[in-house]
Amino acid sequence: MILDIINLKSTIYNLQLIMASKPSIPKGTRDFSPAEVAKRQYIMQIIKSNFEKFGFQPIETPSFENSETLMGKYGEEGDRLIFKILNSGDYLAKANAAHLESKDSTKLTSSISEKALRYDLTVPFARYVVQHQNDIEFPFKRYQIQPVWRADRPQKGRFREFFQCDADVVGSKSLWQEVELVQLYDMVFTDLGLKGATIKINNRKILSGIAEVIGASDKLIDFTVALDKLDKIGEDGVKKEMIEKGISEEAITKVQPLFNFTGSISEKIEKLSQLLASSEEGMKGVEELRFICDNTMNLGLSTAVLDLDVTLARGLNYYTGAIFEVAPPKEVAMGSIGGGGRYDDLTGIFGLKNMSGVGISFGLDRIYLVVEELNLFPKTVTATTKALFINYGDNEAFYAMKAIQQLRTSGIKVELYPDNAKVAKQFQHADRRNIPYAVIIGENEMASGSFALKNLETGDQLSLDFEGLKKALL
Amino acid sequence: MILDIINLKSTIYNLQLIMASKPSIPKGTRDFSPAEVAKRQYIMQIIKSNFEKFGFQPIETPSFENSETLMGKYGEEGDRLIFKILNSGDYLAKANAAHLESKDSTKLTSSISEKALRYDLTVPFARYVVQHQNDIEFPFKRYQIQPVWRADRPQKGRFREFFQCDADVVGSKSLWQEVELVQLYDMVFTDLGLKGATIKINNRKILSGIAEVIGASDKLIDFTVALDKLDKIGEDGVKKEMIEKGISEEAITKVQPLFNFTGSISEKIEKLSQLLASSEEGMKGVEELRFICDNTMNLGLSTAVLDLDVTLARGLNYYTGAIFEVAPPKEVAMGSIGGGGRYDDLTGIFGLKNMSGVGISFGLDRIYLVVEELNLFPKTVTATTKALFINYGDNEAFYAMKAIQQLRTSGIKVELYPDNAKVAKQFQHADRRNIPYAVIIGENEMASGSFALKNLETGDQLSLDFEGLKKALL
Repeated sequence: MILDIINLKSTIYNLQLIMASKPSIPKGTRDFSPAEVAKRQYIMQIIKSNFEKFGFQPIETPSFENSETLMGKYGEEGDRLIFKILNSGDYLAKANAAHLESKDSTKLTSSISEKALRYDLTVPFARYVVQHQNDIEFPFKRYQIQPVWRADRPQKGRFREFFQCDADVVGSKSLWQEVELVQLYDMVFTDLGLKGATIKINNRKILSGIAEVIGASDKLIDFTVALDKLDKIGEDGVKKEMIEKGISEEAITKVQPLFNFTGSISEKIEKLSQLLASSEEGMKGVEELRFICDNTMNLGLSTAVLDLDVTLARGLNYYTGAIFEVAPPKEVAMGSIGGGGRYDDLTGIFGLKNMSGVGISFGLDRIYLVVEELNLFPKTVTATTKALFINYGDNEAFYAMKAIQQLRTSGIKVELYPDNAKVAKQFQHADRRNIPYAVIIGENEMASGSFALKNLETGDQLSLDFEGLKKALL
Repeated sequence: MILDIINLKSTIYNLQLIMASKPSIPKGTRDFSPAEVAKRQYIMQIIKSNFEKFGFQPIETPSFENSETLMGKYGEEGDRLIFKILNSGDYLAKANAAHLESKDSTKLTSSISEKALRYDLTVPFARYVVQHQNDIEFPFKRYQIQPVWRADRPQKGRFREFFQCDADVVGSKSLWQEVELVQLYDMVFTDLGLKGATIKINNRKILSGIAEVIGASDKLIDFTVALDKLDKIGEDGVKKEMIEKGISEEAITKVQPLFNFTGSISEKIEKLSQLLASSEEGMKGVEELRFICDNTMNLGLSTAVLDLDVTLARGLNYYTGAIFEVAPPKEVAMGSIGGGGRYDDLTGIFGLKNMSGVGISFGLDRIYLVVEELNLFPKTVTATTKALFINYGDNEAFYAMKAIQQLRTSGIKVELYPDNAKVAKQFQHADRRNIPYAVIIGENEMASGSFALKNLETGDQLSLDFEGLKKALL
């Protein structure tokens, strides 16, 4: 008994040793298996091909930028979440002595780190436009699909490294671009088989108009957050919360129509037009919304639904016109799978004024989860090798390789099991890798110039010449 | 005159101000324009599709790894070139006080940085295999196309961020894999139109054999470096250098056949077999080479040339069997565009023993330069939008958008010029973007339901109905 316990302890100790030594990856990051890569590439390929159909062209920017390019662009919280790269070599030689002495991490950083990993694709895009402005033909429609990094607390669905898929146009204020971006969302989600995504639209100027009407622009966020709870806590609940936040009863009465904000988009726009009649800015927003929504509806959408949502207050600090957010089909409980909007001064931060931009982004990780949950990945996406040639020794393998070489030239994915291992083991390998066919070559086949093709699902076996084999595997 | 100088000074000062404020990217990194991205993707797509034809499956690993995964794997120089990521938050709180006090940058690093950007794809792959060994079916053929980062001194053709394209098999010692990797190189370069690439092969065991014969394994590198100069400095020059490096005349006499190492691969192997007869290790190398070369030659290559090069001593510290290096076609003066080899203990560094691996790598940046220099990029690679619809106002634009929407659904890349700008400006936009067609819609077209399609190269203009337009643009 005592011996058992000692053994057990020793086993646990050994297990701990093994577990401790097993390598791992930093929290918030991910390895992607072959099936996962294939599925991600499937989604990215659909996004990419639609970007290109709409005339967007790809650019790529470096993973790290000079720190001054990124710092100060995302607010204090953003600055904190940017991954900084330590200078190479004897970085302490140039470190600020006073900050080192006082152990002030925040202040020391700029003297020991000159570069940082990009936090999003928008700021690098703005930097790119300004840096290459003489080589760019405007309006410039660019797309960019690259990873970004954020030192955020990892949690379900939130990672420290993730891909962004952005399409932006810079250099034109035309609202046809907003119309096209709604259509772009619709075509991508249609191609993914994701029926019934809701593209919510709002306008910064509508929100400014509401702020004017309630006479409290500093309360705008509180107002929209409360209003957004209408479905959950009812009109009385929302009003109670607004009053608690310091919005006057008088103001709430003025925007009473927003508590019964239903009907078609046209009807909603009509209601807004009455509500915001006194606000010049608000009426501008109404006109913009009307242009975008009317044209979008008259041109028609395939599977997505356009909806006007006045509680949509995404990116309030930088969007100046349209605001977009996409909700997945109702049967999936998940946050937004895309978003975007118009910003009147994209490149101003880098000294190039008057460059209006408008763009949208696709949330790859969430789209992946939605497509997975709805079982919409085509089976072909993860299909790999079509047939495994069983290895019976070097002569048979040479015979196999002659066929394999020709099949591959025809674009057919085939493999030779590399070793002359036990046949059962080779078949097991095909099975575990979901390879649908095995090709068996023995003395008979070599003598007659044929191939035995075995369907591993049904067990059926055919004897074929090379052309027959090729046809069967195409 | 004085005034002129003052003005000049002021102009220079202003110019400096502008130049100073124009944003830039870190040295050794690159922005890629749409045309560059398209060309890079073209090459990567050919590599990728061939990887898959050969049964390799994609994985992706995080951009940064835990520092202990990377450090100590690439030698002291490598450790120095790894980009380290500064810990987030108050990193100085956990900094080693003694190293901080003594301002020892190298020693301090591990206490203020836990993560580092990957330096290559091989070590992360080894880490992946060990971490996921229970989910992997061996032999495991994986490919990986991702960026890596090195804090190297940037120079022509050497960057701090660049892509690696690797294919490796782990879990089998079969030499058929070496045969397949030579074929893989051949097929990729053939698909790229790059005729006459030379795939040089050698074997670590051949080099060990030579070291045995010359009786000086510590002089092996000096020996191969000198021998490599045979074409340039002649037999006497090479021998002189060898003697200067401390290799005895007697040893040089023993390997005399290497100074006249010509003929077919079979003849070369025959010469080696006589030369290395006394070395067991060397003869093993001869047998391996014979298997790989005989089978490769008997199966045949499309456009590449296989050559045996005993001076090839790439990766001497880790390769244990075959060594590969690819030289571009002779008309291009450029270093190797690919390389690889076999390493008997890939995953041993992470505690998983006896996992033989063999793999090759494609040098994307250099392949790009070679394909560019030989003018081998198909014109279609950078082709983007097929037709620009001229914008004559909102009514015409709506009519245009109806057609555009349908054309895009059919996969045709078309765009509406977003603004109702001067027509000359819109045509100039099409011209600058190399868009081959313009579609013109006026009152006549709207009344008759037709489209005027203008070929911007020839100036020819046709009046077409929608089906005709679609056919012309397909």
